Amino acid sequence: MIIVLKQNINEAREQQLIDWLKSQGLGVHVSNGAYQTVLGLIGDTGKVDMELLESLDIVESVKRVSETFKCCNRKFHPEDTVVEAGGVKIGGGNFCMIAGPCSVESEEQIVSVAKAVKASGASVLRGGAFKPRTSPYDFQGLKATGIELLKIARQETGLPIVSEIMSAHDLDLFEDVDILQVGARNMQNFDLLVELGKSGKPVLLKRGLANTLKELLMSAEYLMASGNEKVILCERGIRTFSDYYRNTLDVSAVPMLHELSHLPVIVDPSHATGIARMVPPMALSAVAAGADGLIIEVHNDPIHALCDGAQSLRPEEYDELAKKIMKVREAIK
Amino acid sequence: MIIVLKQNINEAREQQLIDWLKSQGLGVHVSNGAYQTVLGLIGDTGKVDMELLESLDIVESVKRVSETFKCCNRKFHPEDTVVEAGGVKIGGGNFCMIAGPCSVESEEQIVSVAKAVKASGASVLRGGAFKPRTSPYDFQGLKATGIELLKIARQETGLPIVSEIMSAHDLDLFEDVDILQVGARNMQNFDLLVELGKSGKPVLLKRGLANTLKELLMSAEYLMASGNEKVILCERGIRTFSDYYRNTLDVSAVPMLHELSHLPVIVDPSHATGIARMVPPMALSAVAAGADGLIIEVHNDPIHALCDGAQSLRPEEYDELAKKIMKVREAIK
Amino acid sequence: MIIVLKQNINEAREQQLIDWLKSQGLGVHVSNGAYQTVLGLIGDTGKVDMELLESLDIVESVKRVSETFKCCNRKFHPEDTVVEAGGVKIGGGNFCMIAGPCSVESEEQIVSVAKAVKASGASVLRGGAFKPRTSPYDFQGLKATGIELLKIARQETGLPIVSEIMSAHDLDLFEDVDILQVGARNMQNFDLLVELGKSGKPVLLKRGLANTLKELLMSAEYLMASGNEKVILCERGIRTFSDYYRNTLDVSAVPMLHELSHLPVIVDPSHATGIARMVPPMALSAVAAGADGLIIEVHNDPIHALCDGAQSLRPEEYDELAKKIMKVREAIK
Amino acid sequence: MIIVLKQNINEAREQQLIDWLKSQGLGVHVSNGAYQTVLGLIGDTGKVDMELLESLDIVESVKRVSETFKCCNRKFHPEDTVVEAGGVKIGGGNFCMIAGPCSVESEEQIVSVAKAVKASGASVLRGGAFKPRTSPYDFQGLKATGIELLKIARQETGLPIVSEIMSAHDLDLFEDVDILQVGARNMQNFDLLVELGKSGKPVLLKRGLANTLKELLMSAEYLMASGNEKVILCERGIRTFSDYYRNTLDVSAVPMLHELSHLPVIVDPSHATGIARMVPPMALSAVAAGADGLIIEVHNDPIHALCDGAQSLRPEEYDELAKKIMKVREAIK
Repeated sequence: MIIVLKQNINEAREQQLIDWLKSQGLGVHVSNGAYQTVLGLIGDTGKVDMELLESLDIVESVKRVSETFKCCNRKFHPEDTVVEAGGVKIGGGNFCMIAGPCSVESEEQIVSVAKAVKASGASVLRGGAFKPRTSPYDFQGLKATGIELLKIARQETGLPIVSEIMSAHDLDLFEDVDILQVGARNMQNFDLLVELGKSGKPVLLKRGLANTLKELLMSAEYLMASGNEKVILCERGIRTFSDYYRNTLDVSAVPMLHELSHLPVIVDPSHATGIARMVPPMALSAVAAGADGLIIEVHNDPIHALCDGAQSLRPEEYDELAKKIMKVREAIK
Repeated sequence: MIIVLKQNINEAREQQLIDWLKSQGLGVHVSNGAYQTVLGLIGDTGKVDMELLESLDIVESVKRVSETFKCCNRKFHPEDTVVEAGGVKIGGGNFCMIAGPCSVESEEQIVSVAKAVKASGASVLRGGAFKPRTSPYDFQGLKATGIELLKIARQETGLPIVSEIMSAHDLDLFEDVDILQVGARNMQNFDLLVELGKSGKPVLLKRGLANTLKELLMSAEYLMASGNEKVILCERGIRTFSDYYRNTLDVSAVPMLHELSHLPVIVDPSHATGIARMVPPMALSAVAAGADGLIIEVHNDPIHALCDGAQSLRPEEYDELAKKIMKVREAIK
Repeated sequence: MIIVLKQNINEAREQQLIDWLKSQGLGVHVSNGAYQTVLGLIGDTGKVDMELLESLDIVESVKRVSETFKCCNRKFHPEDTVVEAGGVKIGGGNFCMIAGPCSVESEEQIVSVAKAVKASGASVLRGGAFKPRTSPYDFQGLKATGIELLKIARQETGLPIVSEIMSAHDLDLFEDVDILQVGARNMQNFDLLVELGKSGKPVLLKRGLANTLKELLMSAEYLMASGNEKVILCERGIRTFSDYYRNTLDVSAVPMLHELSHLPVIVDPSHATGIARMVPPMALSAVAAGADGLIIEVHNDPIHALCDGAQSLRPEEYDELAKKIMKVREAIK
Repeated sequence: MIIVLKQNINEAREQQLIDWLKSQGLGVHVSNGAYQTVLGLIGDTGKVDMELLESLDIVESVKRVSETFKCCNRKFHPEDTVVEAGGVKIGGGNFCMIAGPCSVESEEQIVSVAKAVKASGASVLRGGAFKPRTSPYDFQGLKATGIELLKIARQETGLPIVSEIMSAHDLDLFEDVDILQVGARNMQNFDLLVELGKSGKPVLLKRGLANTLKELLMSAEYLMASGNEKVILCERGIRTFSDYYRNTLDVSAVPMLHELSHLPVIVDPSHATGIARMVPPMALSAVAAGADGLIIEVHNDPIHALCDGAQSLRPEEYDELAKKIMKVREAIK
């Protein structure tokens, strides 16, 4: 960490600051330039409060040199992480197609969608059992029953399953779920992250609607610092002033997260756009940018879907998209 | 809800849509204009999926006429709600000054700050025991011990206490806390909201960093639909592209929330700006806009604060601010 | 336009509004639903002030049914527009690679870059002569000399040229430039748009940093309503809270602009990201989403570039990218 | 400027960078810390391209220590600037109330509004003659005629006048206008700024919809570097994800701009909110935060206003507000 002091400051105050920093167990390297004095801090600066230092009247500015995320940082782990879940590999060149309905509605529905997406090349089945809804009056999912139906679909197709968990209370119910999804609204629900970290189960961590990449990586850090290295990052659109589509898919997050971290990065074009006809171009766009996988909503009867139908593809649309995805994968090799 | 159909559409498709809407238990009023047909839906449209309808190829656009929030809506409850907590009233003309340190650090610290802010006119003591931190490596609060120290400070001063709860797991520990705070990151932690709703305890609900006012009110609705009417809304800054300060305090939220809802609205200028010297002007600004109260960080020794020191006022600064607040309250009457 | 009135309003007030609307030359179709009255306006509602109507105390809400952009609207012009400039076609299946340095610096520089990008498949040469800079102290471009150097490069290579015009004052200097670029900061410089509209020259219109797609299309409308149909839209990144890259490339704008408008849509990944190593993945991403072209910065010696060097590719990097672009074009067919 | 180098880099490359920096006329102070090497640059770093340096593979990060704005920087000019226009002083404790209709419509209208706002304490009359409109089909103002009508109103009331100029072409028409307004969309129309700078006339510079404070100050710098010190900054709302109001008034900009710059700072609550009933609370809020003045839309007959009527106060509403403004001014002294 580097602290730039203001010009012409009182030397006693400067010394006081240096002494305080040393009392925190840090080494301090003083560099007197022509225009300003710069203090270089040596040691574990992770706990130093940058904003407190910036607020001091003798300080011009403060700059953190080293990243605060460690476990997920590519600097300390140059090779790609490959997450294994239910026999499927994600990351490190292993492309993963996750597909399924927004909500699990019935055995017939989830099994038929599972079979359809498997036939089109999907290797993981998604389906919401616990649904986070902005309104308390909206459908909240089939809950435990939904999980049971997902397991039936897994048995019928062999596809591992991923579903969103909203509370550590429900961990028992998810014991036999292959990948636990943390939704965008819970990306900074730190208590949930710590419990999922302890569980050791593969986690698909969605970026919050207005969270930076650094914050996403710090949330991954919560999972990993609790001992869980099976983390998949997911970009799903950010909140901007945009009109005409629900969120703005931040495709640039894909190459940048790959640069910053060794974790696999997948993209959810369905929630990002909220519009079925925009899913194919944005899915292809994510693949071209190097995504390690896609999570896409597919429904056999969008008009009757209980929620989010507007963003679901029909199985035949998904099939057509899957073929193009493979071609784009080939093109960028 | 109003559905505008596209021009020159197939009548059979139009009839199919009308039939489907009726099958959902809705009345449909068809209005054929010169340029377009408009369907007015009658009945409980709360569960109708607007986005699904918008995605249909015969639909031009959909507009919801009635608000989806009910319990907190001023339309159905024109008088201001007054929340009582620990003998203090908030809202409906009762201005409430909440103050205290970011984190509870020691008995000496919390008691001395409590005495100081009480002397300056504060009527509720704040103090963090459980701290949500972006990094797992940062100080997470004294937890249960912190709550105990807050109770000691309450005993010494008579001030009721408010503290942030991050998980329903911890509800027992908060049994004797006067107001439970839901932090910005947990505004859409719906499981937590439902449990706090059932608890019946006064809740201070902070607006999320990138949440709309409608989403804030829907989260209040989660609390109220679970039977808890003691909800205080809190604006604490939103995430924008702004430079020079941490967040952008959305002062306009104060009069607009008052228009939309009968719940009290308070403002947190400390977290919004992240800079102690900006707290006084922004606190006065919120008061001038009609806020029902302020929650302000005060620390007796900012340089040693374990977190967020940069945004804390010293007791003497708070005292000076408190006097101006009273004058501005008088001026806008 | 549809006006939804509030419930239980005074009939005299309602009639007063209807009369006023009729006095503005509009037909009014009144539809009395069970819960509310809806007025459907017939005629040219383009000049009706929606916000004024919304501000009336008897009005619940107002919805515009028809788009305010006409000339660039795909509804009224279903086929793709193909813009021709200097013998090159853009749009309607004609993919266009525009490349060149941020700023024109010298004859040697611009000619050598032009030759290099042509060899890699570029069909239009870009180069800044007039540079919009946030700071008045930064390099503002070679101006008239820069334009002359671009013409020399065109003569040497046969590539048509595109360069940014910042003021209608300079139109004479741009007489012989093939495509006039309107920069992001000038997207709503309406006086400039009107003059460029009158000029009839092909215009590359960049989306402003915080402008919606509708605003971009309305600016295109300024050009087209002045008689100029040769308009190319360009997405170049929007301002968000994002960290790690300069702007957020809004790739979703590509398919959505294609849906809303018949104009060609190209993408500038260089300015969007501001980082050379992110240009290839984001360029491929834009192509996969269906862009009609790319405008990419290429410099033969990035370390010496007078501005924006950080986002320029070296010719050999551009060459490698160009090959992948062609493969992705093929893959999405 | 400070350059932090990466760890364990090649010394030859480091020396190459140092040599290049020296060739740019800069002094370089090398500081070898335990973990990293830091280069402190001495001299005029204003022209050094930070992003270019950051893009080099041996560089970890770059930090600019000194602000790039000079003329408007409070560091070099600690006393408040007082701008005089038409006999009225703005800034340095001189509070200025600017009021008038959005657009000048007729002599009767502008004179009657001018008389009304003067009676309520306004000291400058505003009125739009040239109107920037998102749509080319909307009313664009009375132009030259509008300016003439403003002059008549000035003659009748003695109030100096302010009006928006959209192009340097029109400077002759504005010769006798007291304050030239640069609108939000033209904040970075650098050609216009340079010409207004040369004109030497007082300029009211509005912050762009998505511009940072630094960019606003750099635009002020364009005016001042051209020799014009009569600059008034104006906060008028920024674009966010906010619902329910048009823009988000960034009240925090007031104290922060006062800290960064010596220029007067006024606020426009009418355009920020777009809703007449929100103008009073937000005006009072800006005053409480220390604004040097307010620019407020007042119309004698909002229902007939040709544009922006929804945000205009009636004269009697303005009068009531003006009284409260004076009381809040008194309260914060």
